Amino acid sequence: MKLETQDMRNRTVALFCKAGVSESDAAILADVLLETEMRGVFTHGIYRVPFYLRCLKSGGISPKCELSVTAETPSHALADGKGGLGIVLSYKAMELAMQKARETGIGVVNVCGSHHFGAAGYYTGMCAENKMVGMAMSNGDVLVAATGSRKRTIGNNPFAFSAPAGKFDKVVYDIAMSYTSDQKVLKLAREGKPLPPGWVIDKDGRETLDASAYEAGGTLMPFGGYKGYGLAMMVETLAAALSGAAMTQNVHAWNQNPEQNGNVGHCFIAMDISKTQDVDVFEHRMEDMISEIKASEKAEGFTEILYPGELELRKLAECRKTGLVDIADATVAAFEEAEKEYGLR
Amino acid sequence: MKLETQDMRNRTVALFCKAGVSESDAAILADVLLETEMRGVFTHGIYRVPFYLRCLKSGGISPKCELSVTAETPSHALADGKGGLGIVLSYKAMELAMQKARETGIGVVNVCGSHHFGAAGYYTGMCAENKMVGMAMSNGDVLVAATGSRKRTIGNNPFAFSAPAGKFDKVVYDIAMSYTSDQKVLKLAREGKPLPPGWVIDKDGRETLDASAYEAGGTLMPFGGYKGYGLAMMVETLAAALSGAAMTQNVHAWNQNPEQNGNVGHCFIAMDISKTQDVDVFEHRMEDMISEIKASEKAEGFTEILYPGELELRKLAECRKTGLVDIADATVAAFEEAEKEYGLR
Repeated sequence: MKLETQDMRNRTVALFCKAGVSESDAAILADVLLETEMRGVFTHGIYRVPFYLRCLKSGGISPKCELSVTAETPSHALADGKGGLGIVLSYKAMELAMQKARETGIGVVNVCGSHHFGAAGYYTGMCAENKMVGMAMSNGDVLVAATGSRKRTIGNNPFAFSAPAGKFDKVVYDIAMSYTSDQKVLKLAREGKPLPPGWVIDKDGRETLDASAYEAGGTLMPFGGYKGYGLAMMVETLAAALSGAAMTQNVHAWNQNPEQNGNVGHCFIAMDISKTQDVDVFEHRMEDMISEIKASEKAEGFTEILYPGELELRKLAECRKTGLVDIADATVAAFEEAEKEYGLR
Repeated sequence: MKLETQDMRNRTVALFCKAGVSESDAAILADVLLETEMRGVFTHGIYRVPFYLRCLKSGGISPKCELSVTAETPSHALADGKGGLGIVLSYKAMELAMQKARETGIGVVNVCGSHHFGAAGYYTGMCAENKMVGMAMSNGDVLVAATGSRKRTIGNNPFAFSAPAGKFDKVVYDIAMSYTSDQKVLKLAREGKPLPPGWVIDKDGRETLDASAYEAGGTLMPFGGYKGYGLAMMVETLAAALSGAAMTQNVHAWNQNPEQNGNVGHCFIAMDISKTQDVDVFEHRMEDMISEIKASEKAEGFTEILYPGELELRKLAECRKTGLVDIADATVAAFEEAEKEYGLR
């Protein structure tokens, strides 16, 4: 149903304040969740509110969301999130990375002791808004098979990249390492339809087109085979090996064990373009590249070629224009249930 | 045929000195090409020697391979390669990135005015040898379709990542953006075999399993669909938009026009682990992750699970033990032809 964005933001802030989070931290969380919802990334928007509240209630997430810097150089910092909300910690870590980039040109911040990352592209989008190039990534509990493994061996490790792009606003490349999400596989299984190739291996580790094989002990495959597996290991290295967070099998599945701290790790990279060149020239170059690609001859069945994040930016612009955001009925119901529980309705 | 590594190195140095390259730069080039050959990456090893010589002869590559720094901050530098050998410029750029990382924790170097990149994993391997984490990437002439395009719209933009990994030596993740190489497609076409799904679109932009469709106006697909396309744009942004190099359709195909400077761009990132933590602890964490993944249950048909670069490291170790490197007969013949041309046989 369509709801007023500003109202939903205020209600989200109120909820998390009731759960013990400071007002300024609750505001960060609400902003990130609402913008993610407006970009149409429903899996990482308001839908997550009841889960985060459950973790806060059971102690798996601490309401204090402060980054404690444990080691630092002019361009690099390691910080411990001490079990706070992953989204708030990530926002603050990217702020710190950008601050370092303003001083030395480049800033990298690693976070351990964090929790669910939220939408990776939000943080890199912060860089683009500040005329910087950004990367953000996180490890997570094991979900994806390595090439040659029969079971889950590595996280679905989200990775995002952004750059400012002039009239195209910004590029927001935001992916996970599986070819597709388990939700899409389960949907095809319910509909009795076959899987596209490359999505799933069955319980014996064989590639399969049978959608029901996933629930029968199957596993998601990395996108592009060994290329996706290797990228998952890169993210695991940068986000977790470098930060000191839990790794692979030692990462807790927070949605199954809300009372346990996930101790996941993140990595944020910011590059301040203005330190070495004219930002306008850079953005014109991005415009030229994107214009050229978009203008190229279309494949049969395509009416346009998109740049990464373009579809989401359109949805966001529409929501901003109307001041309304379309949220799934079930998500709203669960949100209202939480409001009742905290005495807000 | 099996040849003595040291002898081949000396012969390569002699050849490029004759072509006007300084002895120290020729030594860098020979070391990179030989190690790449020893790692079994034949497409980027000694095979390239006659091509580079042809470019040097016709003026497409300058024998002077000096990085001219045009803008600089403590952690970031832009440099112009002024048309020198891409491999030598890349080596020097990664050296500069590591030098900056030793000072501030992180170093990023962008290069424009460069030429063929060589094997991306060599440069990130330099980081791992120096107990750093590294990334290296380059743009190139358009080869791969964007999602929804009918023709070549973006380069095959190589990307590499490395980290030191204790008893496993190092991770060397080194990929290009197409699902597979044109050589593999052409081989299947010659053999009259079908393509695996996801490799090629035909002249109308439709995905096809017909291997002959590639030579009939088809195009390589990015790996993992839009995820590979987006990664190609990330590399184009970091390597070319940021460095000031030529982009997409403006990059010359150097193997078709040896007399033209490619003006491709690169990006090198180095992170000095020791600045924020104990390198031994980091390497133990890498060992634990890799050991765990390698020990996990194998899929049917697999006897082991590899980490990125493991196969190449084994070949390299074998070559180092014997002092011999196995080079394709045709490659050796072309090399000897070049030696004759330069009066070295």
